[in-house]
Amino acid sequence: MTKENYLDPLKWTEDGLIPAIAQDAVSGKVLMMAWMNRESLAQTVASREAVYWSRSRQKLWHKGESSGHVQHIQFILLDCDNDVVLLKVNQVGGIACHTGRESCFFQGLVGSEWVALEKEAVIKDPKEIYSHE
Amino acid sequence: MTKENYLDPLKWTEDGLIPAIAQDAVSGKVLMMAWMNRESLAQTVASREAVYWSRSRQKLWHKGESSGHVQHIQFILLDCDNDVVLLKVNQVGGIACHTGRESCFFQGLVGSEWVALEKEAVIKDPKEIYSHE
Repeated sequence: MTKENYLDPLKWTEDGLIPAIAQDAVSGKVLMMAWMNRESLAQTVASREAVYWSRSRQKLWHKGESSGHVQHIQFILLDCDNDVVLLKVNQVGGIACHTGRESCFFQGLVGSEWVALEKEAVIKDPKEIYSHE
Repeated sequence: MTKENYLDPLKWTEDGLIPAIAQDAVSGKVLMMAWMNRESLAQTVASREAVYWSRSRQKLWHKGESSGHVQHIQFILLDCDNDVVLLKVNQVGGIACHTGRESCFFQGLVGSEWVALEKEAVIKDPKEIYSHE
């Protein structure tokens, strides 16, 4: 169990997780939301790079470990209920999404349809991003 | 069960919920994160005002119903995994937090302590906000 004191006031879920929102520190764009456990937040604070907990893979996920699209932490905020964390980050490559877009939030509700927004363009082909794997 | 088609692609939790981040449409400030069920998202879309699901009260929560601090919806976005919603809102009163602050994210990690940031000032005393109840 990681012992850093700043982890204790946080309200973790039954699975020991907390939602973490990543926001671009410069543009203010919301890039993604993922989950952290105690160890991932402790590693994030210590390394100043975002480390999440991958629920699908059930392991620590150092953001950018395969893509190179690391998130450098500028500041970490906590909400009034102590149950959501907000990371202000500098996004390496300007791409947070595995689809090659700046932000994971690229689908907009237009009428009653979710539409991939043209202004949220693919900056780099995912095949190219992950080609070295 | 609400039947709007745009609800179907969303990945709801086992409890039928999805996280919803509210961001100020003008300033880009992240205001809060709460949860929605199908009915609350349907009401949000229909009324163009944010309606969440209160997990503590286990009921629909029309944001601003007691405070007057309604959130007018400008646009709704969905992430690449279809499991997080992002609301771009105009925040009535410029106050989203029940503590009387603009944003719920007012605690910053300074060293190893969470500190209520002076720049995230209390705009209105909560006693005044909720005095009519």
